[in-house]
Amino acid sequence: MDTHELTKMLHIKHDSKIVFLIADGLGGLAKEPGGPTELEAADTPNLDELAKNGTSGTMYPVGRGITPGSGPGHLGLFGYDPLKYMIGRGVLEATGVGFKVGPNDVAIRCNFCTFDGEGKITDRRAGRIPTEQSAPLTVKLHEISIPGVEIFVEPIKEHRFVVVFRGEGLGHKVLDTDPQETGVKPLAPVAQDEASKRTAEIAAEFSAQAIKLLADEPKANGLTMRGFSGLPHIPTYEDVYGLKAAAIASYPMYKGLAQLVGMDIVGNATTLEEEIEVLADVWEDYDFFFVHFKYTDSRGEDGDFDAKVKMIEEFDKIVPGVTRLGPDVLVVTGDHSTPAVLASHSWHPVPVMMSAKDCRCDACAKFGEKEALKGGFGHFKAVHLMTMALAHAGRLAKFGA
Amino acid sequence: MDTHELTKMLHIKHDSKIVFLIADGLGGLAKEPGGPTELEAADTPNLDELAKNGTSGTMYPVGRGITPGSGPGHLGLFGYDPLKYMIGRGVLEATGVGFKVGPNDVAIRCNFCTFDGEGKITDRRAGRIPTEQSAPLTVKLHEISIPGVEIFVEPIKEHRFVVVFRGEGLGHKVLDTDPQETGVKPLAPVAQDEASKRTAEIAAEFSAQAIKLLADEPKANGLTMRGFSGLPHIPTYEDVYGLKAAAIASYPMYKGLAQLVGMDIVGNATTLEEEIEVLADVWEDYDFFFVHFKYTDSRGEDGDFDAKVKMIEEFDKIVPGVTRLGPDVLVVTGDHSTPAVLASHSWHPVPVMMSAKDCRCDACAKFGEKEALKGGFGHFKAVHLMTMALAHAGRLAKFGA
Repeated sequence: MDTHELTKMLHIKHDSKIVFLIADGLGGLAKEPGGPTELEAADTPNLDELAKNGTSGTMYPVGRGITPGSGPGHLGLFGYDPLKYMIGRGVLEATGVGFKVGPNDVAIRCNFCTFDGEGKITDRRAGRIPTEQSAPLTVKLHEISIPGVEIFVEPIKEHRFVVVFRGEGLGHKVLDTDPQETGVKPLAPVAQDEASKRTAEIAAEFSAQAIKLLADEPKANGLTMRGFSGLPHIPTYEDVYGLKAAAIASYPMYKGLAQLVGMDIVGNATTLEEEIEVLADVWEDYDFFFVHFKYTDSRGEDGDFDAKVKMIEEFDKIVPGVTRLGPDVLVVTGDHSTPAVLASHSWHPVPVMMSAKDCRCDACAKFGEKEALKGGFGHFKAVHLMTMALAHAGRLAKFGA
Repeated sequence: MDTHELTKMLHIKHDSKIVFLIADGLGGLAKEPGGPTELEAADTPNLDELAKNGTSGTMYPVGRGITPGSGPGHLGLFGYDPLKYMIGRGVLEATGVGFKVGPNDVAIRCNFCTFDGEGKITDRRAGRIPTEQSAPLTVKLHEISIPGVEIFVEPIKEHRFVVVFRGEGLGHKVLDTDPQETGVKPLAPVAQDEASKRTAEIAAEFSAQAIKLLADEPKANGLTMRGFSGLPHIPTYEDVYGLKAAAIASYPMYKGLAQLVGMDIVGNATTLEEEIEVLADVWEDYDFFFVHFKYTDSRGEDGDFDAKVKMIEEFDKIVPGVTRLGPDVLVVTGDHSTPAVLASHSWHPVPVMMSAKDCRCDACAKFGEKEALKGGFGHFKAVHLMTMALAHAGRLAKFGA
């Protein structure tokens, strides 16, 4: 029996509230052996107070040694095994720009490129054309029309854009047209199963029309397509946990990921303070709240240790705004580590803590990576976090008699 | 998706070097409650220094409570689930005496025994006949000839020897002929599938010829066969990790196990010092190095606590010879525990530590079983060690976007 079969069987009604306060890329590394990580260096009196009276642990978003992207990182947090539920590149990119992928959609990540006179690729990224110049090109592609299918073209950044085909019965098993080299023409889109043949035809027709429309463009007169993907079949929070869930995030990617598991996206907050205002506003309407803070990850990605420390301190400051609402279970963690010294996501585990009435306290006196090693939750995979939250929220019945 | 599907998908090229420094049977037990284990009693300044700046943990070779043999112990270390990849007794014994089992081979562990006048077994082990007397008997069996099959007979120790049949299409699903009791004849070799019928016939013919050849031998005039097995289908290090791997060991068993996962066996070292010389010699030619030290296990098996302590101190002394080469990732651990107080392999977990640039330091000040309990890796199964080593070596791409 997998975790969701179990929670589906055991979840019970309750009026308890669960909050997941997620600092993206929270986990870090010291600048030198024995030194503090970003979280350990930060002054976090509110988080430390919670850790003192709660249970801490060390969490692996996907598995040991695995560096997660945002998709797998959040699926793990939400309790969905990231090795079971794969989100295709096209869907993730569409989600990242705020496009709501539907059940009849095939999403494709595209690149603008340059062609020579024979249609052979000369630059696979069109000189990393700036977004101000590529975005108008995606608007030009709105002219493309193919009978029986609705088409969406959305800019991402620089040479990247996303195309979505919407129509009945479109499979998404189509091979990339990007040949991954220059001096050759893009590959034809090849269907990998019967259901995807029509999709491959549409993709070929889309390419042909796009190339005509772009023919006279000086910066980018071609395109390639990759990561054809459809909406993954993910059961909802309501279904597997019996939770009415709300997502409060400022970045489209995280709103999109939350939507994939059936959360409602609430508010239009752009800052953490605004997110907490939204949380208070919708407090009575939901059972579960996913609150996402992006900038710990951003400053980690920048490689700026001190700036990440500062962001963690900002994050700490909003904690009283959450506890004031009286959540029955408050979980604080990250979706993965983004150590400033690596300036990227990493495989290192993430410290996690839970504050709830029935927590079994451990010896952790503050919130941090080394301290969490002493935590009552030990080492565990993110996929188990939701079950523990449900239990502490009084939302899981006894298993067996 | 299993671990190897994942590493196969994610592994990337890098010029980093990974060393696994393995002290066989490293884990131990104290002589009395509260006392030090062999490793804790040993003076190991070099290992302690590594532990101080690295990450430690507590590792289960196969699983909690399971005492591993050398085969499962090493498969786990190499990242292959020992519960998925089984090495048959015949193959393991052949490997142990340095016989390189090929894809068309069936290996069988045999015992010399004694028969009465009617061919009934009187002693299943021929009085544990000394090797000096049994080895010439195996030479006698080289006379056996069966059309269409190549036959190898190699002595092991005392009454034990190994037989290998080499030929096209030989299955290895054949039941043991050892009846596990005296006063009865050996069982006929019975095939369990169509592909093994020819193997069973060959085994019967081999037995018949052997009994004729041994008829006048005073010490052992019969034989039994067990553990019919073929080469297991194990994907190679190159395949699943993208690593060119070298094994440096002095005992045939460990060379053989490394060969099963596609490592090259390099050098002819007989001492640990020589092994480190070989390591330096081949340093530029490989990505991964498995260095095996046997005598920690041997002294544990002898039940000699102090001698095992001494061997651990010898092991510690060669550490600078390894670190001098500048490995990007250095892992030090054992394949299982061999506590001197038990004089045998045991189920106790093994302390492990990793030294690498991007290690997240923990509170471990030295290398030892109790200290490792505070380690940043927590408790984990050996099968996850390789993934963590690859990550720290910069050899795994991000999973998902």
